[in-house]
Formats: sequence, structure tokens, C-alpha cells
Amino acid sequence: MKNILVINGPNLNLLGKREPVLYGSQDFSEVLDELKSDFPDCTISYFQSNNESELINALHAAADSGIEGAVFNPAAFTHTSIALADAVAAIDLPVVEVHISNIYGREDFRQKSYISKYAAGVIAGFGVAGYRLAVSYLVRS
Amino acid sequence: MKNILVINGPNLNLLGKREPVLYGSQDFSEVLDELKSDFPDCTISYFQSNNESELINALHAAADSGIEGAVFNPAAFTHTSIALADAVAAIDLPVVEVHISNIYGREDFRQKSYISKYAAGVIAGFGVAGYRLAVSYLVRS
Amino acid sequence: MKNILVINGPNLNLLGKREPVLYGSQDFSEVLDELKSDFPDCTISYFQSNNESELINALHAAADSGIEGAVFNPAAFTHTSIALADAVAAIDLPVVEVHISNIYGREDFRQKSYISKYAAGVIAGFGVAGYRLAVSYLVRS
Amino acid sequence: MKNILVINGPNLNLLGKREPVLYGSQDFSEVLDELKSDFPDCTISYFQSNNESELINALHAAADSGIEGAVFNPAAFTHTSIALADAVAAIDLPVVEVHISNIYGREDFRQKSYISKYAAGVIAGFGVAGYRLAVSYLVRS
Amino acid sequence: MKNILVINGPNLNLLGKREPVLYGSQDFSEVLDELKSDFPDCTISYFQSNNESELINALHAAADSGIEGAVFNPAAFTHTSIALADAVAAIDLPVVEVHISNIYGREDFRQKSYISKYAAGVIAGFGVAGYRLAVSYLVRS
Amino acid sequence: MKNILVINGPNLNLLGKREPVLYGSQDFSEVLDELKSDFPDCTISYFQSNNESELINALHAAADSGIEGAVFNPAAFTHTSIALADAVAAIDLPVVEVHISNIYGREDFRQKSYISKYAAGVIAGFGVAGYRLAVSYLVRS
Amino acid sequence: MKNILVINGPNLNLLGKREPVLYGSQDFSEVLDELKSDFPDCTISYFQSNNESELINALHAAADSGIEGAVFNPAAFTHTSIALADAVAAIDLPVVEVHISNIYGREDFRQKSYISKYAAGVIAGFGVAGYRLAVSYLVRS
Amino acid sequence: MKNILVINGPNLNLLGKREPVLYGSQDFSEVLDELKSDFPDCTISYFQSNNESELINALHAAADSGIEGAVFNPAAFTHTSIALADAVAAIDLPVVEVHISNIYGREDFRQKSYISKYAAGVIAGFGVAGYRLAVSYLVRS
Amino acid sequence: MKNILVINGPNLNLLGKREPVLYGSQDFSEVLDELKSDFPDCTISYFQSNNESELINALHAAADSGIEGAVFNPAAFTHTSIALADAVAAIDLPVVEVHISNIYGREDFRQKSYISKYAAGVIAGFGVAGYRLAVSYLVRS
Amino acid sequence: MKNILVINGPNLNLLGKREPVLYGSQDFSEVLDELKSDFPDCTISYFQSNNESELINALHAAADSGIEGAVFNPAAFTHTSIALADAVAAIDLPVVEVHISNIYGREDFRQKSYISKYAAGVIAGFGVAGYRLAVSYLVRS
Amino acid sequence: MKNILVINGPNLNLLGKREPVLYGSQDFSEVLDELKSDFPDCTISYFQSNNESELINALHAAADSGIEGAVFNPAAFTHTSIALADAVAAIDLPVVEVHISNIYGREDFRQKSYISKYAAGVIAGFGVAGYRLAVSYLVRS
Amino acid sequence: MKNILVINGPNLNLLGKREPVLYGSQDFSEVLDELKSDFPDCTISYFQSNNESELINALHAAADSGIEGAVFNPAAFTHTSIALADAVAAIDLPVVEVHISNIYGREDFRQKSYISKYAAGVIAGFGVAGYRLAVSYLVRS
Repeated sequence: MKNILVINGPNLNLLGKREPVLYGSQDFSEVLDELKSDFPDCTISYFQSNNESELINALHAAADSGIEGAVFNPAAFTHTSIALADAVAAIDLPVVEVHISNIYGREDFRQKSYISKYAAGVIAGFGVAGYRLAVSYLVRS
Repeated sequence: MKNILVINGPNLNLLGKREPVLYGSQDFSEVLDELKSDFPDCTISYFQSNNESELINALHAAADSGIEGAVFNPAAFTHTSIALADAVAAIDLPVVEVHISNIYGREDFRQKSYISKYAAGVIAGFGVAGYRLAVSYLVRS
Repeated sequence: MKNILVINGPNLNLLGKREPVLYGSQDFSEVLDELKSDFPDCTISYFQSNNESELINALHAAADSGIEGAVFNPAAFTHTSIALADAVAAIDLPVVEVHISNIYGREDFRQKSYISKYAAGVIAGFGVAGYRLAVSYLVRS
Repeated sequence: MKNILVINGPNLNLLGKREPVLYGSQDFSEVLDELKSDFPDCTISYFQSNNESELINALHAAADSGIEGAVFNPAAFTHTSIALADAVAAIDLPVVEVHISNIYGREDFRQKSYISKYAAGVIAGFGVAGYRLAVSYLVRS
Repeated sequence: MKNILVINGPNLNLLGKREPVLYGSQDFSEVLDELKSDFPDCTISYFQSNNESELINALHAAADSGIEGAVFNPAAFTHTSIALADAVAAIDLPVVEVHISNIYGREDFRQKSYISKYAAGVIAGFGVAGYRLAVSYLVRS
Repeated sequence: MKNILVINGPNLNLLGKREPVLYGSQDFSEVLDELKSDFPDCTISYFQSNNESELINALHAAADSGIEGAVFNPAAFTHTSIALADAVAAIDLPVVEVHISNIYGREDFRQKSYISKYAAGVIAGFGVAGYRLAVSYLVRS
Repeated sequence: MKNILVINGPNLNLLGKREPVLYGSQDFSEVLDELKSDFPDCTISYFQSNNESELINALHAAADSGIEGAVFNPAAFTHTSIALADAVAAIDLPVVEVHISNIYGREDFRQKSYISKYAAGVIAGFGVAGYRLAVSYLVRS
Repeated sequence: MKNILVINGPNLNLLGKREPVLYGSQDFSEVLDELKSDFPDCTISYFQSNNESELINALHAAADSGIEGAVFNPAAFTHTSIALADAVAAIDLPVVEVHISNIYGREDFRQKSYISKYAAGVIAGFGVAGYRLAVSYLVRS
Repeated sequence: MKNILVINGPNLNLLGKREPVLYGSQDFSEVLDELKSDFPDCTISYFQSNNESELINALHAAADSGIEGAVFNPAAFTHTSIALADAVAAIDLPVVEVHISNIYGREDFRQKSYISKYAAGVIAGFGVAGYRLAVSYLVRS
Repeated sequence: MKNILVINGPNLNLLGKREPVLYGSQDFSEVLDELKSDFPDCTISYFQSNNESELINALHAAADSGIEGAVFNPAAFTHTSIALADAVAAIDLPVVEVHISNIYGREDFRQKSYISKYAAGVIAGFGVAGYRLAVSYLVRS
Repeated sequence: MKNILVINGPNLNLLGKREPVLYGSQDFSEVLDELKSDFPDCTISYFQSNNESELINALHAAADSGIEGAVFNPAAFTHTSIALADAVAAIDLPVVEVHISNIYGREDFRQKSYISKYAAGVIAGFGVAGYRLAVSYLVRS
Repeated sequence: MKNILVINGPNLNLLGKREPVLYGSQDFSEVLDELKSDFPDCTISYFQSNNESELINALHAAADSGIEGAVFNPAAFTHTSIALADAVAAIDLPVVEVHISNIYGREDFRQKSYISKYAAGVIAGFGVAGYRLAVSYLVRS
């Protein structure tokens, strides 16, 4: 698998800018650069939005544009968006769900994911290293 | 990180022998061989038990015997053993929780993990590939 | 009643393209053509969006633009959007809630609707024939 | 489809006689006359009972006596009778569940239906017009 | 008020015959005789059935046949029959709900009544004396 | 039984002064006068308090001062005071629980009573007539 | 024990006629014949009804007519009828509760039984063989 | 504090236009004019959107553009949007949560707020006067 | 509105003396002095009690003694006293509910208020500034 | 079927020694002797352990050693051990779940079984006679 | 530690007088005498009240009057009084929570304690011996 | 009572070695030494295991070997092991349940104990001093 899309959900545009205790101090562009250098044979594209429908559209479009796998951190939408879960279920792409923080050690409402059931797998709690694990899975599957 | 312990919980001795739809058709010794060949710089030891206290003891012992990180698939104990969760919490070792099947798409009682809160991170649903992801995380952290 | 708006929510742009077992194999443009031929005296307009706010705005606008009744399939938003429910409650238009699949035979979280309470009525489980029933109700009421 | 049975559950013999705010002021014989005139090509038979077992028996018998589809308003039994739900599931007839009032805007205990899961579809909240919608679905399916 | 109907629900035909600890050792015909002698100015009629629909029909009929008030012990149907509750709600008669045993000191499932909300009032726990209290209320209201 | 104590809980000093829709327009002194004239052979004493401990003390004292039975409307304490329930349980006096309004048709939190389990019986929803029923029970038991 | 009554609840008249996957393909008369030939020393009578009150009456009558033990499959009433549970509790007969399918592997609402608490014992999941086990228990107890 | 942003969530563009019983008959531009005249020393800017992501973006932007405090009525998103709550938590601005109606006296699902936990404070039920209270707090803090 | 009563519930006599992290370091007499100087045209009286019935009585009395509005911090009684809620509901006075700390960010049991439903409005989380906001609302309403 | 293994879980080594009210006064060796004499054509082996993993291992081993069916009383592990349930699910052997006492009449936590879903059937409440019923089922199936 | 206050909550003035099965037959003055003779070096003072606010005041006062530790049996207030819990939390005194009966073996509502979280420790089920254990802890801590 | 057994459950072998904030810094051998010196007339034996069945066996054996009372800290098994609870219930020995930390101030799942109901009493939150209190109770009872 070569063409991989990384998608980040709401408030992740602030990554590295705020709440470093929870989310680390690394800007996501650095994370992306590291991913690209870790997987030089892949084309890794990136999309972030605070808008649920743009994320749905990005998932729909991915399947139609040569993307072979997606790494998706739905952030807060994880726990509230059945529409995103339905989008993941509807497309043929393997979608790996990633969470930076350990959602299982946080508030109750962050411990339920509508997405997980339809994801190829779930990776949570490894900080931004979770993205690398997700890509490495997609590359080999 | 070089010294890594892989621990499998109850019924995983049957892996590759039964219920291939859920757990794949690969015997765990093959998985282990692949791990060793994928990570030639690591010493990867392995322990499986159907016995909760042996798993607790293995976690206690690991921290005292040069193990630098553990990959732990607690299987059914995930959902019922606070004692194992306390063992993970008590030791200083990073413990990565791995599940072969996507527990979030199965019965309700399989969607709660006592371990996750204390784990370095959680990887679920990737089949036996999850072990490789877990080791690759430990190697780089 | 002559001016009727049909509104479809998230992921329904994929209708007929994916998951035919759940949603049938008919593209919605065909459904719309059939509606128009079944109700030649009606003006039937159509709006689909994956975007909650565009759906809210469409409901607000409908009431101000001569629409006399709406057929609304909120899809996944049925179960999560109080904002859409409030929009249905706030406008003077009769809104018929339609679901293609039998939501009562699916997951628990699909069996609760925030919209139903404020709808003129609910039609679920008849496949795309539900739209015809909804229009036929509005035409005669 | 031509032979259609309309079945009404407990207390619906009072329709048009009491609580007009909830159930309208139309006697069900008028509703039936309207149905017959709306669907002149159909044979529409009618059965009402306050007795759960008579309703079960009517469903069993329908399948054996040339009835091709049923319109069923189980009234209060909707929320309490698994036996009726099992009867609907056991027979081969398409059964459309109809509710006169919008049960989703009433008490919590009226928002759960044992029947819906096994029904061909559900129509609720349109007053007695729901029967017409149900028949019109059966006629065309 | 002069014409009063006493209605007993399922298993109350066994009253005085079994489980004297819970329900006392008095046969209901004795209770009825005492009621008649306590209220010589009243016409007190009696109906018992183990059949939910016969109880519904009795309530429907009472309102049409000169009965001015009903004393109703729905027994086990108290906790399971929305149809009986709807019948109580639909008729214009004041219906006093009576329970012989203190249902609030028994199993959880006996502590919820569908009927109470629509009853003129509830009397529970006084043994068969509850019937006398109920009639004395109806006589004076 | 001759010596009867009527006890009213919090806010019932406002009876007849406020919220007549819920509680009627009769001042409790009138109710008391009627009780005394209805039961000329009884000594009926009265106690009202907004103070939970004064009500507990009144129950403790009653048993030691010749009171043979109590009529107790615990008002809001019904749903929150285990201490009052324990007081009712601890004393040897029969205590009849009375509620003026039909608590079963009001908010969820008013439908649970800590007291009922330990009461001789419960009377609810008859307005102030409930006090008369309660006394008439005590007089004959 | 010699005189045994087998009672089947709602929809079990369809046994062997419909849904063979769930209930097997054997008509109950065959089951009954096998029972009689397996237990030649017993008199085995049979009653089936879709009517809750007829089942209650059958239980009441059994105790008065020389029946020494009952095998009871309450079917859907298992989960909804407190009245039937009360009937089982009220009579002196040992009643063995039988379920053909494994109710514990089906929907949540089928996993609760009001009857079990009062039954002599419960047998579930063995198909129609459960009736034989039940009779064999009664014969020897 | 001088620079204050007032943000209104979904359907609040209809304020003063519909449902005056719930939300008053005042258009929000009048409310805004009154705020400006009540706090002449403040610069009060205003943003309304039915779009969750636009509200998130407005909160993100506020912190970067000289706004010193925000008054936020998330309307229906209060109860469903963890993404908005995360945005409030992520920025450094004090955010006062305001509700026009008394949400605690309405439906259950309107009584839970994801936002409150991260807000500087909550003001609910005072009608549009709540906005004035919120600004007066920000001005003095 | 000129005559305003400020009422504080249990443990608030300790304000400024203990737990400054939660409740600030200001003694309530200072808060009261500030209120009086902020609202020189008002007569502001004050009452504190750890006794639920004294608070009930104070609310009853206020309505009869020229008080035009009340600011009420019920403290721990917020979550447990239906009697106080009934007192607020019974009197004609507008009562503003105030909480010093943000109860929505604390334990689950502190997030439910029996009072809110009957209050003129709720103000929470602003520290002692909440009292000023409450008075400013009453003065202008 | 000839080779049958009877497995007893924790504390059942005390059978006949303690709590005769709950478990009878018969030592299990007597039960076993009776089983052997009742089924002379069968080889009945026996295993008891208080150790969950030994029970898991016994189930694993049974399938590999000629055992054709198992009778399993998991005792307290019934309600807590998903690992045992997984073992029952993983092996090809029919496993009959037996409980001596009527678990449905005991504490709530004893009424849920993780095992039942995967068992060939469940027998509960017949005392030690349940073992005989279980074996008789296995012998004939 | 020398100055110790023993506090008993509601209905404990009846100790030794009523319900000896639950609370023993010893009057508390005897218990107190035994405590004094067991701990001759301590000054042990005693306070009992059925009044929640007097108990709150006693806790407040204790901290200001040389008391070094408290033994507190809140009785029924354990389960209902957040105000008492807040008082325990607010003062600097170590407070040992004592229950005479084993509250964990009684009704569900007696198994939750608001106090425990803030107590120095909890002692339950030892009868009045629990007071001695509590004092012996305080003396040595 | 002279012969006392102290039993510690899973992970308590780590006591004094890890997580001193939660469990103190004292090795349990020191605790044991202190116990022996505090109670010189007692024979205090000790058993620790991470193995549930060894703890069950130890309880069974204790009763048969002259032990007169047990002090049992079941640690994590407190919340998950019905088998241990059954063992405590089955033996005739008084068993005092001890917890070092205040389990009522920790996670929800640590606040439920299966053991408590069958224990002679419960002591929680006093650190290792709880063992001394437990022994002192057993010595005198």
C-alpha cells in the first residue's frame, strides 16, 4: 500500500500550540515530516478539519481518488458522530482509528467510540507515535 | 529498547488451532518467529498462561529481570481482572495492550478494559499484526 | 399541498452506490424521478447534505420560500442532532421523518430519534418507498 | 397485493368515542369506509380485539387464509407483548405497524416497540391517515 | 355515589385459598359480604378475571351501564399491562386502585404501576380492608 | 383504636394558602375539624413541621405517650429521608402513609418512597380525603 | 410421580411448521408421542394456548385435578407475565420451566424470566429434548 | 476587560421570530444594542452560526485577535458537542456559558452540558438578560 | 426591585475560613458589604443556616414580609432537598440559584439540582461574584 | 455418547459438608456413584477445582482426549469468568451448564451467566439431580 | 490523641431500646462507659442528634474546641446527607465513620455513603465494638 | 481468640516496594512484626497469594486447622471474585475484611465488594493500621 491519507478531526489544528500535557508539544507538520521520512516509499497526504461534513466528504472522496488506506483521528467526533462512523462503514478503504491520548484513562464520555466498530483497527495512547504505527500497518497490509 | 516480553492470556494457547474466523489461522509460534525476524536487534521472550496469577507474577518478575517493555494481550481477563490491571499499574514497565480481534465490534462486555487505563497504549483489531505494531512502538520509545 | 421539499442527510449521497443490502441499489435520482411521476401535480425539490448546518439552514429557508411540507431523512443525525430537532420544532412546516432501513431492528443507538417528537409523523423500514408514502401524506393533509 | 387485513389492538374499539385530542374524532368504521373507497381494487377485512391471544390467532390465521398483507396497530400491546412480536416474526406475511398518535412524543414506555423489529415497516403519528399509507405500501409492494 | 363495581385481577380467585401469609385467609366472598353490610345504601357488583381483555371489557362496559365508580385490584397486571392503564384512562369513571399486600415492600418489579397515574387514587398494604377504604372514598366523592 | 396522631411534613403549613391546583384550597385546620367530627370517638392530635428531626422526634414520642396509630404525610421527605423511614420502622405504632396528590402521576423523583416499605399501608391521590380514609383504617384495625 | 401435564405457551402451536432454524422441524404431537413412549408408566396430558389467562387457569386447575407435576414452556410470556409467575407460585405443584432455544444467547429481553424464581428448576437450550429431561426429573422426584 | 465576543449557536438566528413563549419576542439585534448601551466602554462583537465548525473556529480565532472574554450560548450544541467543549477548554479565554431558557426545567437531554465543565461559569434561565449578566461579569473580572 | 434577601445554605458559614481553593478566601461579610455598596438603592438582608427547615421557613417568611426577590445558594441541599425545592416552588418570590464553585466540573452527585427547575435562573461557577450578578438581575427585573 | 466428563467449579469441594440448605447434604462422591449406576454404559470421569485456569485447561484437554461431552457446574465463575466462557466456546465439545441451586431466585449478580450463551443447554435448580439430567441429555444426543 | 468526640446520628437514641436483632441490646450509655474504661487516658465526649444541622454544627465546633478526633456514626444520614459529608471535608479533624450493622449486607440504598470519601477510614459491621476500634485508631494515630 | 490468620490478596506482595502514595512505604513483614508485638498472646500466621484459588483453599483450610479468625485483604479480588465471597460464606470462621486505602474515595469499580456481605465486618482506609484494628476485634470477640 502506497497512497495513504492522514485525517485529523476537530481542534487538532491546535496540536503543539496548546495543552502540551495532554497532546504533546509537537506541531503536526513535524509529525507529518517524520511520517514522510519514515515511509519514503509512500505518498502521504493530509487533511484536517473542524467540520464534520468536510471529514465525511474527505472519506468519501478518498475512496474515489486512489487512496489505499486512511489514518483517522476523529478527536471529539469519535464519541458523538454516527455520521462519520457511517462514512467509514460505507467506503471500501481500510481506516485505522488513532488517538493521541489514552482515551480510556479520561472522562467516561471519551471512552465510547462510534468509529471503532467499523475501523480496521484502533491505536490509542501512544502520543503522535500512533500515526506511525497506523501507517506501518497500512503499508504492510 | 531491546528486551521485550510478549505475554498472552487465557485461551490464546489455542491460537491458530480453533475459531480461525475470529483469531486467524496462524499458530503463535509463527507470529513469534516473524516478530524475531522483524526485530533482529531485540530479545523477545514469550509467556502464555491461562492462569491469572501466573500472568500477574510474570509482570512482577519482568520488571525485576531486565525486561524493558511488555506486549500484553490479556484476552478475556481484559474485561474482568482488576488484579492484572493493578499489576500493570504497580510495575514501572511500559505495557502495550494488544487485542487480535476488534473488541469494539463484539459483545458489550468485551468493550470495557480494566487494563487500558494503565497501559502505555492500546492496539486492537489488526489481527496478529498488532503484536508487531506494539513491539515497533516499544523499540522506538 | 403542492410544494414539497425532500431533504436527505449524511452519507445518503452514496445511496445506490454502496451497501445495497442495507439501502437498496437504487440511485436517489431514480427515486426522485419516480416521485415526480407519481405526483405530477406537485413541485418536488430536493436537497442533500452531509453538513448539519446546511440541513438546518435548508429547513429554515423552506418555511420562508413557499415550501408547504418537507420529507426529511436525517440519516445518522437522527440519533445525535438536537440542533436539527430544534430546527424542525422552530419552523411551521409539517416535516415527515423517513428512514429507508428499519432502524428499530438495528443497533441500539439507531433506535432513538431526537427528531421524531417534533415530526408530523415517522415512516421507517419501507426502503425508498417510504419517500412516496411521506409525499402522499403531505399531498392529502 | 389485493387481500389486506387491518388489525386493531386494545382500546381501539373506543376510537372516535373518547379522548379525541389524542386519537381524533373519527369512528373506525368511517376510516374503514374511506380505505375501501381509496383502494377499490382491494379486499380489506378488519379485526379488532382487546385480547392478545385473539390478535395472535388472527395473525396466524391470516397467513393461512389468502391474506397477502396486514396493517397492524397493536396499541398498548406494542410496548408489552413479545408474544405478538413473535407471532409477527413467525408468519410469512408482510405486517405494517401503524400508530395513530406520535408515540415518540409521549411517555417513555410508549417509545419502545417489541413489534417494530419484525415489521415490514413502521408508520406513526399521522392520525388515522397512517392506515391509508400502510395499505398503499402493501398494494404496491 | 351508589353503584360501585369491584374488579379483581389475575390469581385473586385463589384469595383465601392459598398463600395466607401474603394475602390473608379470607375468601373474597366474605370480603364482599362485609362490604355490602358496611355500605347498605350501595349496589356493589363484583367481577374477577384472570384475563386481561375481560378486565378491559369490564371497565369499558361499566362506564356504559350506570356504574358510578370502580374499585380495581389489577394484581400482577398492575406492573405489566399498559392496555389496562389505557382502559382506565379512556373511561370517565373514577377508578380506585387497591393492593392487598404492601407492594412497596416486595420485589422491585412490583413497585411500578402503570395504572396509578390514571387512577383516582391508590390504596396499598391494608389487606382486604383496602377495599372498604376504596368504597368509602367513592361513596363520599 | 382511639388515640390518633396526624403528622404533616414540610411545606404542608402552606396547605390551602398556595398552589390550590395541586393541593386543594382547604386549610388543614378545616380538614382537622372534619376529621374530628367524622370520628367523634377518637382523640385526634396534630403535628406539622418543616424540620425532619422534629418529625422523627414526634414519631419516637408518639409511641411512648399513648398514641395508638399515626397518619403521616411526609411530603417531600417521602423521597429523601431514610432517617424518617428508620423512625417509622423502629417504633411499634402502625403508621399510615398519606399523600394528597397522586405522586405516581408527577415527576419521577416523587414516585419513590423510602417510607412505604415500613408503613402499615399507603393512601395517595385522594386529596385531603386521604386523611379520613387513613383514620378510618386505624379506628377499625 | 405419574400424572404429568405439559403446557406450551404462545406461538408454540406453530412448532415444526415455521422457523425450523430456531425451533426445530418436529411437530409437537411427535414430541408428545415420544414422551409417552419414553415414559410408559406416566399419564402425560397436554395443553397449549396463546392465551395467558387460559394458561393461568390450566395451572390453577392442574393442582385440583390430580396432576402431580407440570412441564411448562411459557414462550414469550416468560419475559412479560408476572401473572403467570404468580400462578406458578400460588399452586402447590412442582413446575419445571422449559425453553426449546437457548434464551441466553438471544436478545436481551429474552434473558429475563419472571417464572424461573418460582419454578422447581429451569431447562433451556436442548431443543425439544428439554421436555424429556423435565419429565424425567418429575418422574423421579 | 473591554473586548468581548458574544457567540450564539444553532437556531438562535430565529430569536424573536419564532417560539416567543420559550425564547421571548426580542430580536437579538435589539439585545445587542441594549448590551452596547449598557456597557459603553466595551467593544462588543457578535457571531452567530448554525455550524459547529464555524463556532469552533470563532473560538480559536477569538483568542488570537484581542478578544478578552466570550459570552457563549451554544444552544442545542450544549448537549451534543464535545468538539465545542474541547475548543472552550483549549483556548485561554474566559468563556461564560449562557442559556436563555431554564434548561433544567426542560427535557432530560437538555439538562446535561458538555461545555459547563470548561466554562468560566454558567448562567441559565434569565431570558436574554443572561447576556447582560455575562458581560457584566467579564467586564469586572 | 429593592428588598432583596440573600440566603446561604449548609457549611457556607465557613466561607473564607476553610478550603480557599474551592470557595475563595473572602469571608461572606465582606461579600455582603460589597453587595451593599454595589447596590446602594437596595435593602439587602442576609440569612445563613445549616438547617434545612430554617431555610424553608426563611423562604416562606420572605414572601410574607416585603422581600421582593431572593438570592439562594442552597449548597449541599441543592442536590438532596426536594423540600427546599418545593418551598421555592410554593412561594411567589423570584429566587435566583447561585453556586460559588462550578458544580458541573465536580462530582456527579453535585451536578443535579432539585432547585433549578423552580428557580428564576441559575448562576454557577463565578465565585462570590455570582451573588452580585444575581442581585443585579433582581434589581432590573 | 459414552465418554462424559463432569466438571465442578470453586467451593463445590465443600458439597455436602457445608450449607446443606442451599446445596443439599449429599457429598459429591455419592452423586458420582449414583450417576455411574444410572448410566452403566458410560465412562464418567470427574474433575473439581477452585482454580479457573485448571478448569480452562480441563476443558481444553477434554476435547483432545476422547471426551464426547461435558457436564459443567462453573459455580461462582458462572458470573465472572469470560475466560471460561471463551474456553467453552473454543472447544468442539457439547458442554451442559448445570447449577444445583435455582440461581434465578438468588442475588442479582448470580442471575447472569457468561457461560450459558456458549453452552449446549442450561439446567438449574434441581439440586444434584441436575447432573443426572445433563448426562441423560448427552447420552442421547 | 486524647480528646475524642463520639457522634451518633438519627434514631441512635433508640439504641438498645428497639430492634435488638439489628442493633444489639446494649444502651449506648453502657457502650460509652466501656469506651471510657477501655481508654482511661482519653477524654471522650458524646453527642447524639436526630437533627442534621446539629450534627453539622457539632462537627464545625469540634474543630474549634480542642477535639483531636471524631468517631461518627451518621446512621441514615450516611446515605442522604451531602451537607454532612461537606462538613467532614471542611474541618481539619480526622473523622472515623462507624456503622453498627453491616450496611453492605442490607438494602441497596444503605450501601452508598457520601461520608466515606472524606473520612479517615470506615468501620462497619462489628456491632458497637466498632466504636472501640475507631477510638483505638484515633488514640494511636 | 488466639489463632489468627492474616491473608493478603493480589499485588500485596509489592507492599512497601511500589506506589507508596497509595499503600504506604512499609513492607508487610514489618507490619506483621508489629502485629505480633502488639498481640503477644496470639499466634498470627500469614498467607499471601496472587492466586484466587490459593486464597480460596487457604480459607477452606483455615477452618479445618485450628484458626479461630481471619483478617482478609482481598485487594483487587474484592471487586471481582464471587468465588472468594462464597468461600468466606461457606466457612464458619469470622473473617474481617480490611482495605489499606480508602476504596470509597477511589474509582467506582473499587467501591463494590462481593466479600463485605459475608464478612464479620469491614475496615477501610486506615492504611496498614487496619490490620491491627481487625486483629484487636478478633481477639476480643
